[in-house]
Amino acid sequence: MAEKRRLYPIVTADVALFTLQEQRLRVLLIQRANNPTPGGWALPGGVLNPELDASLDHTALRILAAKTRVALPHLEQVATHSGPDRDPRGWSVSTLYYALLPSDQVPAVAGDKTESIEWCDPERPGHRLAFDHRVLLGEALATLREKVGRGALPLHLLPAKFTLTELQRACEAILGRPLDKAAFRRQIKEAPQLVAVEGEFLRGAQRPAQLYRAAGGFAF
Amino acid sequence: MAEKRRLYPIVTADVALFTLQEQRLRVLLIQRANNPTPGGWALPGGVLNPELDASLDHTALRILAAKTRVALPHLEQVATHSGPDRDPRGWSVSTLYYALLPSDQVPAVAGDKTESIEWCDPERPGHRLAFDHRVLLGEALATLREKVGRGALPLHLLPAKFTLTELQRACEAILGRPLDKAAFRRQIKEAPQLVAVEGEFLRGAQRPAQLYRAAGGFAF
Repeated sequence: MAEKRRLYPIVTADVALFTLQEQRLRVLLIQRANNPTPGGWALPGGVLNPELDASLDHTALRILAAKTRVALPHLEQVATHSGPDRDPRGWSVSTLYYALLPSDQVPAVAGDKTESIEWCDPERPGHRLAFDHRVLLGEALATLREKVGRGALPLHLLPAKFTLTELQRACEAILGRPLDKAAFRRQIKEAPQLVAVEGEFLRGAQRPAQLYRAAGGFAF
Repeated sequence: MAEKRRLYPIVTADVALFTLQEQRLRVLLIQRANNPTPGGWALPGGVLNPELDASLDHTALRILAAKTRVALPHLEQVATHSGPDRDPRGWSVSTLYYALLPSDQVPAVAGDKTESIEWCDPERPGHRLAFDHRVLLGEALATLREKVGRGALPLHLLPAKFTLTELQRACEAILGRPLDKAAFRRQIKEAPQLVAVEGEFLRGAQRPAQLYRAAGGFAF
C-alpha cells in the first residue's frame, strides 16, 4: 500500500519484552493484524496518540497492554530510530524500549490488532521481522546484556521470591554463558537491592536455599 | 504565545555540545531569537524537517551547523523525552544528543535564529534554561561521565595530536575529580584507539612528552 509521504513524522514506541522460559531468554513477538504489514511479525509497538499519552513511555505501556494484555510497571529506553524509509507509511520516529516480565507472569495473550503472539529466541526469532525490528531487537538484547554484564541484576525477570541460583540462571540466560558460582555470590553479596526473606527457604533435593526478594525501589 | 494543541507531535533534536576551555568542561548554550522563547537560553536544537533530514541525527547536525556554525562528525544519542507540557507549542518529542568538540576548534559563532552563544559550566550554566533543557543538560553530562568513568577515552575533545597528560586532564575535567597518574597510564596502555605519533614530542619545561593520535575508526 503506497501512501504519500507526510509532512509530519509518524511517532511510535516499540518494546522488546523479555522473559525466561525453562531458563532460556525469550522475547515476545506479535503477528500484526493491521496495515502496513498485516500478517507480518514484529515487536509489539504502535503510534503515539497525543490525546491519550502523557509520554512515549505511556505509549509503550498502553500499546503493550492493548496488543498483548501485559501490564508492566517498568520500561527501559534503549534508543530512538528515525528516517524516511523504515516505515512504509512515511517518515517515522520510533523510540525503542525493553522490559522484563517475571517468568511466572508469562501468559500474555493476543489482543487488539494482533493475530497471534509468540515467545521467541531473541537471537534466532524464527520469523522475518517487519520494519527494522530485527535491528531493534538486536539492539535491545545488546543493551540488556551490557547492563547485566556490568553487574546489574535482572530482578524483574524473577518471581517475587527467588533463590540466588535462580538469579544466577537469569543472568546466564541473558549473557548466554555460564557464570562462576563463587564469583557471582561474591558480586551480589553486598547488593542493596536483595533482601533475604526471613525464615523462607526453597526445599528440594538439595539443601534448603534461602529465598530472596527485591528491596523496594530498586531500579532494574 | 498560547497555541492550540496539535494532533501531531513536534519532533526535535537537541544537542549538548561539550568542549574544554582551560582544562574545564564547557557546554554550548544559545540565546534563542525565535518563538516560543525569544531571548531564552537553551541547548541548540530544533525541529525535524522530514523533507530535509535523513534521520534525527541529521536534524541535530543540520541545526547545530545552522545555529552555531559547528560541523561535527560525531554524535551520541542520550535519550528521548516526550510529553504534552515540555514545549509550549504542544505535544513534543525531543531526542537528546551529546557531542564533543576539540578544544582547538572552539570558535562557534551565533548563526540563524540565534541571538548569541556562550560556553558555560555544565553544572552551573549561569542562565535559566528554556523548556526542560536543564534536565536534558544534566542527563547528557551524566551519560558522558558514566562513559568516561567506565574507561572510554574522550578523544573527540582533544586536538589531532595530544599527550597522555592532556588526555588525563580531559578525563578529569569530565569526571570532576583528579585521577591517579600511574593507574591512568596502566588503564590506557593497551588502548587500541591510541597511536603514538612516531618521532613527535611535545617539548616544554619538562622532559619531552610523546604525542599520540586517535586510531582510525575509534568510536568515542
